[in-house]
Amino acid sequence: MKVNQIKIKKDMKVSELIEEFDGSGVLGSGRVSRACNLLAKMIADEDTNVFMSLGGPLVPGGLRFVISDMIKNGQVNLIVSSGANITHDLLESFGGSHYRDVGGDDEELNSQGIGRIADVYTSSEDFEIFEKEITKIFEKIASEKKVVSIQELLYEVGLLIDDENSILANAARNNVPIFAPGLIDSMFGLQLWMFNQDHDFTVDAVKDMHYLSDIVFNSEKVGGILLGGGLTKHYTLASNLLKGGLDMAIQITMDRPETGSLSGAPLEEAKSWSKAKCGSDLATVIGDVTVIFPLILAGALDKLDSD
Amino acid sequence: MKVNQIKIKKDMKVSELIEEFDGSGVLGSGRVSRACNLLAKMIADEDTNVFMSLGGPLVPGGLRFVISDMIKNGQVNLIVSSGANITHDLLESFGGSHYRDVGGDDEELNSQGIGRIADVYTSSEDFEIFEKEITKIFEKIASEKKVVSIQELLYEVGLLIDDENSILANAARNNVPIFAPGLIDSMFGLQLWMFNQDHDFTVDAVKDMHYLSDIVFNSEKVGGILLGGGLTKHYTLASNLLKGGLDMAIQITMDRPETGSLSGAPLEEAKSWSKAKCGSDLATVIGDVTVIFPLILAGALDKLDSD
Amino acid sequence: MKVNQIKIKKDMKVSELIEEFDGSGVLGSGRVSRACNLLAKMIADEDTNVFMSLGGPLVPGGLRFVISDMIKNGQVNLIVSSGANITHDLLESFGGSHYRDVGGDDEELNSQGIGRIADVYTSSEDFEIFEKEITKIFEKIASEKKVVSIQELLYEVGLLIDDENSILANAARNNVPIFAPGLIDSMFGLQLWMFNQDHDFTVDAVKDMHYLSDIVFNSEKVGGILLGGGLTKHYTLASNLLKGGLDMAIQITMDRPETGSLSGAPLEEAKSWSKAKCGSDLATVIGDVTVIFPLILAGALDKLDSD
Amino acid sequence: MKVNQIKIKKDMKVSELIEEFDGSGVLGSGRVSRACNLLAKMIADEDTNVFMSLGGPLVPGGLRFVISDMIKNGQVNLIVSSGANITHDLLESFGGSHYRDVGGDDEELNSQGIGRIADVYTSSEDFEIFEKEITKIFEKIASEKKVVSIQELLYEVGLLIDDENSILANAARNNVPIFAPGLIDSMFGLQLWMFNQDHDFTVDAVKDMHYLSDIVFNSEKVGGILLGGGLTKHYTLASNLLKGGLDMAIQITMDRPETGSLSGAPLEEAKSWSKAKCGSDLATVIGDVTVIFPLILAGALDKLDSD
Repeated sequence: MKVNQIKIKKDMKVSELIEEFDGSGVLGSGRVSRACNLLAKMIADEDTNVFMSLGGPLVPGGLRFVISDMIKNGQVNLIVSSGANITHDLLESFGGSHYRDVGGDDEELNSQGIGRIADVYTSSEDFEIFEKEITKIFEKIASEKKVVSIQELLYEVGLLIDDENSILANAARNNVPIFAPGLIDSMFGLQLWMFNQDHDFTVDAVKDMHYLSDIVFNSEKVGGILLGGGLTKHYTLASNLLKGGLDMAIQITMDRPETGSLSGAPLEEAKSWSKAKCGSDLATVIGDVTVIFPLILAGALDKLDSD
Repeated sequence: MKVNQIKIKKDMKVSELIEEFDGSGVLGSGRVSRACNLLAKMIADEDTNVFMSLGGPLVPGGLRFVISDMIKNGQVNLIVSSGANITHDLLESFGGSHYRDVGGDDEELNSQGIGRIADVYTSSEDFEIFEKEITKIFEKIASEKKVVSIQELLYEVGLLIDDENSILANAARNNVPIFAPGLIDSMFGLQLWMFNQDHDFTVDAVKDMHYLSDIVFNSEKVGGILLGGGLTKHYTLASNLLKGGLDMAIQITMDRPETGSLSGAPLEEAKSWSKAKCGSDLATVIGDVTVIFPLILAGALDKLDSD
Repeated sequence: MKVNQIKIKKDMKVSELIEEFDGSGVLGSGRVSRACNLLAKMIADEDTNVFMSLGGPLVPGGLRFVISDMIKNGQVNLIVSSGANITHDLLESFGGSHYRDVGGDDEELNSQGIGRIADVYTSSEDFEIFEKEITKIFEKIASEKKVVSIQELLYEVGLLIDDENSILANAARNNVPIFAPGLIDSMFGLQLWMFNQDHDFTVDAVKDMHYLSDIVFNSEKVGGILLGGGLTKHYTLASNLLKGGLDMAIQITMDRPETGSLSGAPLEEAKSWSKAKCGSDLATVIGDVTVIFPLILAGALDKLDSD
Repeated sequence: MKVNQIKIKKDMKVSELIEEFDGSGVLGSGRVSRACNLLAKMIADEDTNVFMSLGGPLVPGGLRFVISDMIKNGQVNLIVSSGANITHDLLESFGGSHYRDVGGDDEELNSQGIGRIADVYTSSEDFEIFEKEITKIFEKIASEKKVVSIQELLYEVGLLIDDENSILANAARNNVPIFAPGLIDSMFGLQLWMFNQDHDFTVDAVKDMHYLSDIVFNSEKVGGILLGGGLTKHYTLASNLLKGGLDMAIQITMDRPETGSLSGAPLEEAKSWSKAKCGSDLATVIGDVTVIFPLILAGALDKLDSD
């Protein structure tokens, strides 16, 4: 099969660009088109439960509405998030922001109360508000429950957030469970611990596995959208282990495979572990999530349209 | 300044996606939008001569028409190419192709006469035709000239190619000079050497510098589009050394900066060498050229439209 | 200051090689020598508590004895591990192994019960033994405690392991606490959950923070050895937040900084967040942990000798 | 075959460290041990001509003596260098240096006449001396020859350099030819062009291929040491094309394979093109050349000893 040369023209739609990539089919552009096709298939298929993992600074990096909209539109059915993305989602719900074009070295930033994530900046004032607000929420929840799982806690928090753009709020209202096995490792987790010290409130680390495994067993098929690597990627894969693995998945990563770290591992490797089914449809794009995911999602939405 | 959250919707134009990236302005999407803006500015500015370097498998990877169209549309004024991209451009002009979805390990491919570039494949039959045709062309040129520079040779070859999609043909017809200081390191170079063995024909390695430096000195401003790294990137930067450096430039690369290799070096470093002007406008995108360049070009074309 | 050229000779000691790198002081070799010097300083300083994070496949990749020996020798005082490294440590204690030179594609491996981590292979038979043995251990522990933190659980497990090479066994016997905030995301976690379903046994996700923060507050100084990225790196950094950050740290990673993911973030960034102190001594090596850590450790041991 | 765990102890020799890596045999340490074994084999085998490619800032990065010593010791028989490594070798022979720990941003460096290569710095004063000295050398050579190939030119320059540490001087005196197909793209090339403008002196770009191909055809076997990527890597591989490819090779690179760029391509790919023989012995290490090459060379020298 021949590699078609890509044509670029004025007024091009994203889906037309992806079609050009599809015609070429090789190197990065081939990977992008295959991931886009697979994303569209996953979303369109009513029998496929879509699990999405959120690793890396997706909310600080501008993907908060993208994720919220997918929840609202029923395009994602389950989320596995880092504690950081949950913290940053709430930080915006409580009136905080993420900032850019700040500059200065890290010691200067520190003296100004500014935290840095590559070229994204946060303000300690926003975090102070976060701390007050999340503590109030913990108080409400703890007044009714003494033992919660992480997923239950995030659900209860989501119900108490009044923000149409919030990932947690939309997830709670749309019955999209959020799992966060490493939640404790975040500003949210830190506040939870502080709250814990003088309240009778236990967060069970194991309890969520039961609910998660029920969802997996009750899914006809499971598709994975693996954004970033680390714990959230692995947990999403591993949750499907008991049923033979994911039926289809895309991942976007900038990490390398050679060190053996899961973040950069090819999805094919998951087949050996039964974390992806033998015969499953898998696509990896090497690139920055904040570029590649909006690109393939915009392309996929048009494919849905045409179905 | 706040990071705006990206919104994705159906029927989105590429330029609308880039606008969303512009609103976010951080991480990879921020880099893409800045490179797109700079590309549009470079193309639109009549006083800026645009130099484009072609490193890596751009023609095999599907960017041949993209480059040819930019030449035809007057959007690029000078090219610095690897020998490989010239070889693969001519291979298509002589009726050959690039192939995909071939599979098999490298020893099997070898036995079938198939050369591999990641997931792009070539056929030895196509190369045999290339060898015959390029030799005929050398004969025509050598019958009239005994000493040529590389740029002159590529110009003469381009004039003899009848293919509306060819980079060489379009460059020759549109007075876009092609420099290729490492030309000898390619199948084109190999054929040139074989031809050389029994013909009185000298290719002068140094002569092009004079013409190139004249172009630089006669340019009001110079902009760089640096696709891939290596020799072609360095030569494009270094050619501007005598006039204090490039006035603006974008680069797209997947290489890392920490090893000190030029391919992954930040463009800022070029300022220390006067290869980019102090105060010049520079943007680096970390990503696969076959994805990122079509994306930012499509976005830039719409910006031209609106001017 | 001049870059000295590196000299290589026969019968060279690792510490002599590092001295050559020290004389050069630039690019990768400069990074290696700075990390080695800092590691030696950290280990030698009696007032510095050394925290080590274990991300990525360190045990499968051959670093199990290296870590155990550091515990035995009092060179590391606290560990933050992924669940996977704990699982693989126990897998070897229970008689299992890691394998190499297996070959075959991932679907073939799956049919043979072989799990793949890049070019390291595991056997399902070894995991079956792991499951039986760890369950017996859980039974012993649950017969005495109903609520444990993750650190307490790992301590109790370590005490029950009779293996002089085990990380968990040595840590328990040497009062080196092991934290594993993402423990649940591992085969260990999976077995814990299964055990949980029919036993009254709660693993508290938050409780460890209290003990960890006590250690931080009681440390004169804290040094970090950050192997691999992800959750374990962040938790190690963040645990020092309340006291203004780490006093010194080295990290070894192959991930990139530009995407904003913590795994590839420069340690300098941690200063903005008060996760590393302003003025702290920090060194990053870009490379494969299984090469770089043994190299700098061997170099550092000789520096200790000479003190 | 089992993965042995690595043991690190005091007073360890580099070759003992490599033996530990050999016992592990997986991930980065496995790659390092395989490359070390292959390097030793290549050097020890009298029937193997060793070709070494020098891409990236190897001389600025501290490997100048390493390369010179290998030439003196008869461990390398042919070099393919970038123009930059030749320039920087001569810059040191003419009394210049490379510098470290300079600091300042690139615009400040520019105003001080300091060029930056990652964290290596150069001085414009050293380059001024380089320009004067190399011009004198060109005058001597041009007074005797009117047309030279690049290899001949570098040989003549080498003979005129009186510096026991110089790569060029040692190569000339030890009959190790240096090829530099992209020579023109360097400060050496720039001076050559300037000299050219008022002297009757032609550098033939094609002529070297004849001599190089003779060497290849007269080699029983050819081994490759590919340091860095780009043109020099490709030329070294391609020079063996007509004889079916390299018999064995090692490469050290930090570039990725997925973009299709040759610099990051696995050596296996060269088999499809007959640039490495089917059945050839090939090893790739992902890492920084300034760390990995001294490491494996020190290890290999001890293996020679024991033979």
